Amino acid sequence: MTLILTGIGNFPMIEPGANLSELICMALHESDIQLQKNDILIVTQKIVSKAENRLVNLTTVHPSQDALDLALLVNKDPRLVELVLGESKKVIRAAKNVLIVEHKLGFICANAGIDHSNVSGPWGSQSDWVLLLPENPDASARSIRDETEKQASINGIGVMIIDSHSRAWRVGTVGTTIGLAGVPGIVDLRGTSDIYGYKMQYTIISAADELAAAASLVMGQIDERIPVVHARGFPYPLRESRLREMLRPEETDLFR
Amino acid sequence: MTLILTGIGNFPMIEPGANLSELICMALHESDIQLQKNDILIVTQKIVSKAENRLVNLTTVHPSQDALDLALLVNKDPRLVELVLGESKKVIRAAKNVLIVEHKLGFICANAGIDHSNVSGPWGSQSDWVLLLPENPDASARSIRDETEKQASINGIGVMIIDSHSRAWRVGTVGTTIGLAGVPGIVDLRGTSDIYGYKMQYTIISAADELAAAASLVMGQIDERIPVVHARGFPYPLRESRLREMLRPEETDLFR
Repeated sequence: MTLILTGIGNFPMIEPGANLSELICMALHESDIQLQKNDILIVTQKIVSKAENRLVNLTTVHPSQDALDLALLVNKDPRLVELVLGESKKVIRAAKNVLIVEHKLGFICANAGIDHSNVSGPWGSQSDWVLLLPENPDASARSIRDETEKQASINGIGVMIIDSHSRAWRVGTVGTTIGLAGVPGIVDLRGTSDIYGYKMQYTIISAADELAAAASLVMGQIDERIPVVHARGFPYPLRESRLREMLRPEETDLFR
Repeated sequence: MTLILTGIGNFPMIEPGANLSELICMALHESDIQLQKNDILIVTQKIVSKAENRLVNLTTVHPSQDALDLALLVNKDPRLVELVLGESKKVIRAAKNVLIVEHKLGFICANAGIDHSNVSGPWGSQSDWVLLLPENPDASARSIRDETEKQASINGIGVMIIDSHSRAWRVGTVGTTIGLAGVPGIVDLRGTSDIYGYKMQYTIISAADELAAAASLVMGQIDERIPVVHARGFPYPLRESRLREMLRPEETDLFR
């Protein structure tokens, strides 16, 4: 059992409107990788967001009174806070330098995933630009998967879009799934038997998040010369899936 | 940039007192893997706990009144709850079928990591046996690392001990570090610059947990024929570390 994760560089700066599947296929070609059935491509949200033109210039944002009040509490730019609130269903925790929300997409994360680094825009100071998450990462993943399969004349690959998330209890970010196509979000082993025939009652594996973390390790965080990782050897059968299946329903979540 | 994770099978059933380093070296040999500097071995806690004889037979456990009360609330075996309390500093959440604690070792997890599957013992019904976590997984990792380096006549490898943990907010378990030797727990990029020269103010990567998740994916959960994963291509410099650096101090943790 071998899992091979290869970082795919050779990408140009991604501009709004870029055809990611075409760029991915070219970069895979330059890396001498020929896609096979059951391969998975893991894509950082940053290039998806840029291609989908999710850039916002903070100088165009006019914070509401709610955003101004919250910005004071969390010690963040009120314009950023305004954007965070617009991307969120609910504030989960707010404290000095910390703003954790339930994103409109359903997951819990800091600052609604809005990113201030590695962002530039067509005008103004670099530090005025921020990048929102893709509007529908499941749909983005499906579109990249379908288009890449077409261009590579192949069937049965998976695509995931990931971001770096902070966690409760532990220090540091880990790569986390925000959208997926053709990859099982979770693998449910409840009811299967272990080596002694004892029923494993509670085991659901977050297979996609384990792969997201693995790919994030290969991508690194600075320089971002590696926005895509190619994975071969994922040990579970591929199938259609949605982010939704990876999210704990609020009523069973004791940590909101 | 390529990260290659190879599952190492070919292990016998691990008995208390087993020399894990010797078994790992033999299994690597049978898998045709020759250890190199900067390679990392990721070991499931189960075989470490078994080798360290952390098996307990529930019929020998006499639950306290606290354990009896809590067992009623969480709908679990009072003897198991007694063991969980003995391994914990504090109960973090208790609800029907859920018992989340701060383990004596400092991390937050369900049931203090006590495992009821894939455990048998020298006598009694299989289902009476449970397995506690290693007493000091950092020390276990160091000992496996030092002994394996000696046996393989090599220097500069890393060893991690991992377990599958549930998480807040998301469904399913992911592989998580509980002990490490020679692997950076976190990689602190604060103050480094991104591709636009913008300072990345908040980025600390949980590199060890990203590798733990990757290895867990290769190990799988049932059958446990793959208790060790060999990783080549970890992208950060190896250094000494301790679990402690991976744990969020209580005063900065908003989710306890």
